[in-house]
Amino acid sequence: VTDAQYFEQTPTGSIDRGSLTSTALSLAGLDTHEVVEILERLPPHRAAVLYRLLEKDRALAVFDALEPAIQADLLAGLRADEVRTLFASLDPDDRAQLVDEVPAKVAVRLLEDLPPADRQDTAEVLGYPSGTVGRRMSPHFANVHPDATAAEALDLVRAQARRAETVYSVVVTGSGRELVGVASLREIIASDPTVRVSELMSEPIFVEATEDAEKAAHLLVDHAFLLLPVVDTEQRLLGILTLDDAAQILREEADEDAARAGGAEPLRRPYLSTSVFRIAKSRVVWLLILAISGLLTVQVLEIFETTLDQAVVLAMFIPLLTGMGGNTGSQAASTVTRAIAVGDVRSSDVGRVFLREVRVGFVLGVLLGSLGFLLTAVFYNLPTGIVIGTTIVSVCTMAAAVGGVMPLIAKAIKVDPAVFSTPFITTFCDATGLVIYFSIAKAVLGL
Amino acid sequence: VTDAQYFEQTPTGSIDRGSLTSTALSLAGLDTHEVVEILERLPPHRAAVLYRLLEKDRALAVFDALEPAIQADLLAGLRADEVRTLFASLDPDDRAQLVDEVPAKVAVRLLEDLPPADRQDTAEVLGYPSGTVGRRMSPHFANVHPDATAAEALDLVRAQARRAETVYSVVVTGSGRELVGVASLREIIASDPTVRVSELMSEPIFVEATEDAEKAAHLLVDHAFLLLPVVDTEQRLLGILTLDDAAQILREEADEDAARAGGAEPLRRPYLSTSVFRIAKSRVVWLLILAISGLLTVQVLEIFETTLDQAVVLAMFIPLLTGMGGNTGSQAASTVTRAIAVGDVRSSDVGRVFLREVRVGFVLGVLLGSLGFLLTAVFYNLPTGIVIGTTIVSVCTMAAAVGGVMPLIAKAIKVDPAVFSTPFITTFCDATGLVIYFSIAKAVLGL
Repeated sequence: VTDAQYFEQTPTGSIDRGSLTSTALSLAGLDTHEVVEILERLPPHRAAVLYRLLEKDRALAVFDALEPAIQADLLAGLRADEVRTLFASLDPDDRAQLVDEVPAKVAVRLLEDLPPADRQDTAEVLGYPSGTVGRRMSPHFANVHPDATAAEALDLVRAQARRAETVYSVVVTGSGRELVGVASLREIIASDPTVRVSELMSEPIFVEATEDAEKAAHLLVDHAFLLLPVVDTEQRLLGILTLDDAAQILREEADEDAARAGGAEPLRRPYLSTSVFRIAKSRVVWLLILAISGLLTVQVLEIFETTLDQAVVLAMFIPLLTGMGGNTGSQAASTVTRAIAVGDVRSSDVGRVFLREVRVGFVLGVLLGSLGFLLTAVFYNLPTGIVIGTTIVSVCTMAAAVGGVMPLIAKAIKVDPAVFSTPFITTFCDATGLVIYFSIAKAVLGL
Repeated sequence: VTDAQYFEQTPTGSIDRGSLTSTALSLAGLDTHEVVEILERLPPHRAAVLYRLLEKDRALAVFDALEPAIQADLLAGLRADEVRTLFASLDPDDRAQLVDEVPAKVAVRLLEDLPPADRQDTAEVLGYPSGTVGRRMSPHFANVHPDATAAEALDLVRAQARRAETVYSVVVTGSGRELVGVASLREIIASDPTVRVSELMSEPIFVEATEDAEKAAHLLVDHAFLLLPVVDTEQRLLGILTLDDAAQILREEADEDAARAGGAEPLRRPYLSTSVFRIAKSRVVWLLILAISGLLTVQVLEIFETTLDQAVVLAMFIPLLTGMGGNTGSQAASTVTRAIAVGDVRSSDVGRVFLREVRVGFVLGVLLGSLGFLLTAVFYNLPTGIVIGTTIVSVCTMAAAVGGVMPLIAKAIKVDPAVFSTPFITTFCDATGLVIYFSIAKAVLGL
C-alpha cells in the first residue's frame, strides 16, 4: 500500500533522469499483481510513463494482466514497435478483447501487423459475435487421442506445455478433431502408465461457440472444471474456455449487476482512472428514465390534490410510506435477483415466488403496520392511526410481491433482472403506494 | 430442466415402491451437479427421501457438493450409520463448515464418532475462529522438499495424488515443515527431470491461519493461483486454501453483499427451500431500522408544516425529489462499493472520491435541474420552476457526495460497506433533501 501511494504521489510527468532510475528500481521490487494495481489507479498519461520503466519480460506479464480498457489506454502512449510486440504477445482471446477497446482504424493496423498464424487464430475468435463463448475461447489447449496410454499422454502434455493455456485438464479428440472426452492430468499421472486415455477420460460437458459466454462461464464454475471445451455444430473442437477467462466473464457480469442494481451502467474500467464525464455518462440515462417515471408520482398527487388540501397532515407521511414500500420491494427484488443469478430460481417459478413474497410481505406489513398504527394513534389520532397502519400492511404486501416477481418477468422477456431492480421498483412502488395511501385515507377519513 | 421439474412435481412423500424404483433410475441418469440442483430446490423432508435413492458413491459425491445448510437438513433425516459415513467422507474443512450448521449436541456426537486421525484434522481446523482462513484451510496438500529433482517430485506428487485436494500446485517445505516455495506441476513436468525443485519453485505468497478468510480468498483469486499456503506464526505450513474453497468464500461474500445492498441479511441457503418465516426474519430488522430512521422525514415535514399549509403544491414534488436524491446517492454508493470490493478504491482515497462525486453530482444535477426548471416553469409557474430546478442541483450534488463517501466511512469504521448502501443512503438523502427543498422554497417563495 505504501508502495502504491509512493507511485501515486510521485509526479512522474515531470521527473528527471535520476528519479526515473530510482522509480524503475522501486518498481522492480514489486510483484506483477502489485504493478497492475498501481497502473489501474493512475490517469492514462502517468500510467504510460510508469509502464515504460518496466523491464521487458515484466512489461509483457503486466500488460497481459491489465484490463482491456487500460491496455488500450497504454497502447496510445507507446511507440509502434512496442505496440506490435505487446499485441503479438497476447493470447488470441485476450487480443480479441483488446481489439474491441481500440478505435476501428487502430484495430485494423494492429491485426495487419500480426504474424500470419496469430492473425489466423485471432480472426477465428473475432469471427464470433461479442458476448458469445467463441469470442472468449482460446485455441491453445493440450489434447490427446483416446487410444494413447497414460504414459504417452503425459509425454504429449509435456510437449504441449509451453503453448497450452492449461495442461491440468486435457481435451481428448478423435482423428477428425471430434471431441470425445476430457481427462484430468491428475488421473493421467496417478494411473497405471499402460492404461489408455479412453478409460481415464470422462464424458465431456461442452458448449457450442455461438452460445452465451456468461452461461458457459457459469457452467464451468458450477462444475468446478478447469476448462470447458468449445465446439462447432458438428462437435469438432474449436477451443477451450479456461477458468481464468470464466472468472473474468463472471467478474464483468458482477460489475454489471452491481452497477445496474444501483441504477447505472457499468464503468468497465477502474473507478479512479475514469473521468468525471464518463462516470456522469454511465448514470445520466438511468437517472433520466427514473426521473421521468417519477413524474408519475406528481400526477398521482395531483389527482388527490383536494384530499391533500383538506388534510395537509397526510403529506407528512409520504416519504415514510413510499420509503417503506421501496425498501420492502428492493429487499424482495435483490433476494430473487441473487437467487436467479446463482441458479436457485428459474422463470417457471414465478408462481411460487409470488405466493412466497405475498406471504413474506404480509408478515412484515402486519409487524410494521401495528407499530405504525400505535405510534400514529398515540401522537396524532385514531383515524390517522388506522390509515397509516392499513396503508403499511397493503404497501408492504404489494411491494414484496412486485419486487419478487419483477426480476423473473425481466428474465422471461430477456432483460437483465438487475435492470428492473432497486430504483425501478422504488419508483413503481412510490406511485402505487400513493394511490393506496390516498384511497385508504379518503375512505377512512371520509374526505 | 425438465428432469428437475419432474422431481419437483413427483410427490416423493407418498410414492409407492414401484415409483421409488423408477425415480431411482431417473436419478441415475443425471450428473452430480444436476442432482445437487434438484435437492437444493426441495423442502427438507422431500430432499431426504430423494437423497436416499442415490447409489452409495453418488450419494457421497452429491453430499460433498451440497451447501452446508442443506447438508445439515439432510443429516436430520438419515440413519445414524449413514450420518457417520457421510461425515467421515468429508474433507476436514468442509466438515468444520457442517459442524457450524448443526445443533451443538449433534456436533459433539458427530465428532466423537470420527476415526482418530480425522478427528485430529478436524479439531485443528475448528481451533481457528470462524471467519479466519484457518477455519477454511485443508490439511491435505501435496508437498516436496526443495532438494528433490523434478523427476522425484513427480513421483512424490503421484504418491500423494489420492489424498491431496489439488496436485497442480505443490507446496515446497524444508525439513522443519517451514514453507520455502510453491511449484506448479506444469513446471515440474515440463522441465528437465534432473533440475531441482528449488530452481523451479517461486517465492511463496502465503497467509497466516488467523487472517481473514475473505482477504485470503481475494489474494488467491487476484493472483490466479490454484492454492494459497496457510502457515503459523513461525511460517510453518499448516494447510492450504484451495481455489474451490476461495470461490466458495467469495460466493458467500457476494451473497452477503447482494442481500445487504437490498437491505436484508443473507439467507445462507437456497431461496425456494427457505421458509417464509426465515425470509421475513432476514428482512425485518433492516426494515425496522429504516422505518425508524424514516420517522426523521416526518419530523422534518412537521417543522415545515406552516410552509406546506401555505403552498400545498410543494407536497406534490416530494416523492419526485426524494426519489431523485435517493437514486443519485445509490448510484454513487454502488459504484464506490463495487470499486472497494474489487480493490480499485481504498479508505485513504476518501478525499479523491468526495471531489469526484461532488463534480459528477453537480453535472447530473445541472442536467436534470434544467429539465425540471423548464417543465415546472411551463406547467406551473416561474417561482416554482426556480425552486424545483435549484433543489434538484443541490440534492443531486449532496446525494452523490454522501453516497460516494458513505461506503468508505463504513469501511474505515470496519462496517460492511454494503450495509451503508442503497436503503440507508436513501433514507438519509430523503431527510436532508426535504430540508434543502423547503429552505429553498421558503426563500424563493417568501413564505
